[in-house]
Amino acid sequence: MRNPLSDKVVQIQPSGIRKFFDVANDMPDAISLGVGEPDFDTPWIVREEGIYSLEKGRTFYTSNAGLQELKNEISFYLERKQGLHYDSKNEIMVTVGGSEGIDVALRALINPGDEIILPEPCYVSYLPCITLADGVPVRIDLKEENEFKLTPEELLGAITDKTKALILTFPNNPTGAVMTKEDLAPLVDIIIEKDIVVISDEIYAELTYGSDHVSIASFPGMKERTILINGFSKAYAMTGWRLGYACAPKLILDQMLKIHQFAIMCAPTTSQYAAVTALRHCDGAVAEMKEAYNHRRRFVLNAFKEMGLQCFEPRGAFYAFPCIKEFGMTSDDFAMKFLEEEKVAVVPGTAFGNCGEGFLRISYAYSIEELKEALGRMKRFVEKLRKNK
Amino acid sequence: MRNPLSDKVVQIQPSGIRKFFDVANDMPDAISLGVGEPDFDTPWIVREEGIYSLEKGRTFYTSNAGLQELKNEISFYLERKQGLHYDSKNEIMVTVGGSEGIDVALRALINPGDEIILPEPCYVSYLPCITLADGVPVRIDLKEENEFKLTPEELLGAITDKTKALILTFPNNPTGAVMTKEDLAPLVDIIIEKDIVVISDEIYAELTYGSDHVSIASFPGMKERTILINGFSKAYAMTGWRLGYACAPKLILDQMLKIHQFAIMCAPTTSQYAAVTALRHCDGAVAEMKEAYNHRRRFVLNAFKEMGLQCFEPRGAFYAFPCIKEFGMTSDDFAMKFLEEEKVAVVPGTAFGNCGEGFLRISYAYSIEELKEALGRMKRFVEKLRKNK
Repeated sequence: MRNPLSDKVVQIQPSGIRKFFDVANDMPDAISLGVGEPDFDTPWIVREEGIYSLEKGRTFYTSNAGLQELKNEISFYLERKQGLHYDSKNEIMVTVGGSEGIDVALRALINPGDEIILPEPCYVSYLPCITLADGVPVRIDLKEENEFKLTPEELLGAITDKTKALILTFPNNPTGAVMTKEDLAPLVDIIIEKDIVVISDEIYAELTYGSDHVSIASFPGMKERTILINGFSKAYAMTGWRLGYACAPKLILDQMLKIHQFAIMCAPTTSQYAAVTALRHCDGAVAEMKEAYNHRRRFVLNAFKEMGLQCFEPRGAFYAFPCIKEFGMTSDDFAMKFLEEEKVAVVPGTAFGNCGEGFLRISYAYSIEELKEALGRMKRFVEKLRKNK
Repeated sequence: MRNPLSDKVVQIQPSGIRKFFDVANDMPDAISLGVGEPDFDTPWIVREEGIYSLEKGRTFYTSNAGLQELKNEISFYLERKQGLHYDSKNEIMVTVGGSEGIDVALRALINPGDEIILPEPCYVSYLPCITLADGVPVRIDLKEENEFKLTPEELLGAITDKTKALILTFPNNPTGAVMTKEDLAPLVDIIIEKDIVVISDEIYAELTYGSDHVSIASFPGMKERTILINGFSKAYAMTGWRLGYACAPKLILDQMLKIHQFAIMCAPTTSQYAAVTALRHCDGAVAEMKEAYNHRRRFVLNAFKEMGLQCFEPRGAFYAFPCIKEFGMTSDDFAMKFLEEEKVAVVPGTAFGNCGEGFLRISYAYSIEELKEALGRMKRFVEKLRKNK
């Protein structure tokens, strides 16, 4: 039989996150600090709405773009939280998690050869989705000395005549970096002058510690060139519900909606009804979970300090990104050896781009007990490495 | 601002199905015979399992390919119903409805310029998904005199050196055509000889009247070159749950899984738990719904006979595809005038391909009362048209 496969798909690497969990899953007493997922159940009031909608028999398709009631709530939410004004009839569509939004956004924008600027380290989906859509990724290696923020110089240096869009992902997975209004302002000038589109993945917008999230879409002149991606997975602990949304000017959203209509039809109905309740009634629950993450964040940073491990202070999401360069090992070797010797799964920084070499991603979306045990093992491992140097 | 959009996406036409419903939705006493969706609520035992899984807090991601428990049940089901043997660990993945499976299958196969043979009339997603994946659609106009089946001659005539795959969709939406084992056998010889892949969309497999569905994957030599798409939407009345599956040889499924992993992550968790129950305990419920569809099918065919309207007898799915050529109007004009004058929404055959000109798609997934009222209006409309000729 002939090779039936698409060349570009074959060359895409599988996610570097999963590898360690497949190994860890087969170890009875392994601990994982690896999965990018809240450890909380979805708030009961949200699950209750899901249950109610199943009892009522709301098991049919919704319209392609999503329940109007939900799109209204998303519009209110973005207004209330970030001062954004999105028309719920024409500028919002409900997606299967943030993931689908990213894929559909890229498919709607890219002509073959268009360059997409991708600051790394970043979440693992962007690069393959750019490739799948025939775009050319132009990577920027973000630097720890810049607190893993994107600088105007870095952005300018990456722009060419072929630049179509910039992917902006703050608060960031895996670094925990955030960008303030003051950080974003000089980028905005460049983006508008160079006439490029921004795909702003704001899935961790609710999870910032010390300052509120600012969306780049809120700057004058930016809404018309921004595709804002957000969702319910992280803030509301709703990963399994597979629900997110994309907001964009009608010109762009109409095209995204066509792709969504044909490739997905609509987001899950039960999740959509439940998400209405999440937006209406869960500010308190989100604040509680955020406070728990913040507590764990401080605990983790303190543990790194105690074991003498350099770590940039993450101010968003639920990840720390400690530096392990002192050990002279690759991130991959460190993570594999740590898993083998101490049975703790973490993700090598290189899973998020080559510039993640020398770092690890540690998720602190775990209980303090689990963190204490895992970081105790890490301390022992690190001390052993130092002794054997 | 520059045009930010992908050229190929812009040129894709929106679905021709929705147009009439937007109009119908604004008419207070309009009846729709248009949506391709069961009118039944999901069986209670399935919803109950969904409720239970929400109560239990099963609100997390599943593995990318889906719950192993569900993949096992899918494997048992395909064995039990169609004598197919799929390895639940390596050859099955759970998708967001059949829709995602089709999109991902095409993305995994197509190199730019590969030809995909598409027998029409057919469901509206294939053509845009082929275009999105840079494939070249090669349409075959299926003929009423062949009972809208694909003939060996038609297939042979469409194959070139560039043919990558054939999309096969029986039982068919919109015609209701089925293909028996005897019908498929000569196609199989050609497919194997010409070394092409089949994407077999079997979403209506449970809904056949008079003969059981036969999957083309069950022929010797075909499993290794078939991507079988199926799901829960139609047979189990689970459209809003957004749950389907794709089965393929590991060589192909591995590539599909990468796309799914990055673009979607995983199918909705609640739906996956509920679907386990659907496969384990709902043969009876499916049989009851099928009997209801069959009753309606006979009712609709009889009504067409009474109004003297020619209609090929559909033996699968829940659509009838009557011919309206006698009126000398386009399908679109007929459907629009019928909606305006009698407030009944149906879908013009051209929504499913140009060769659907002169036909209408009538869904009979509606109660007998609704069908009686709508077909009464149709009779009046048709008689008026004949009188005014």
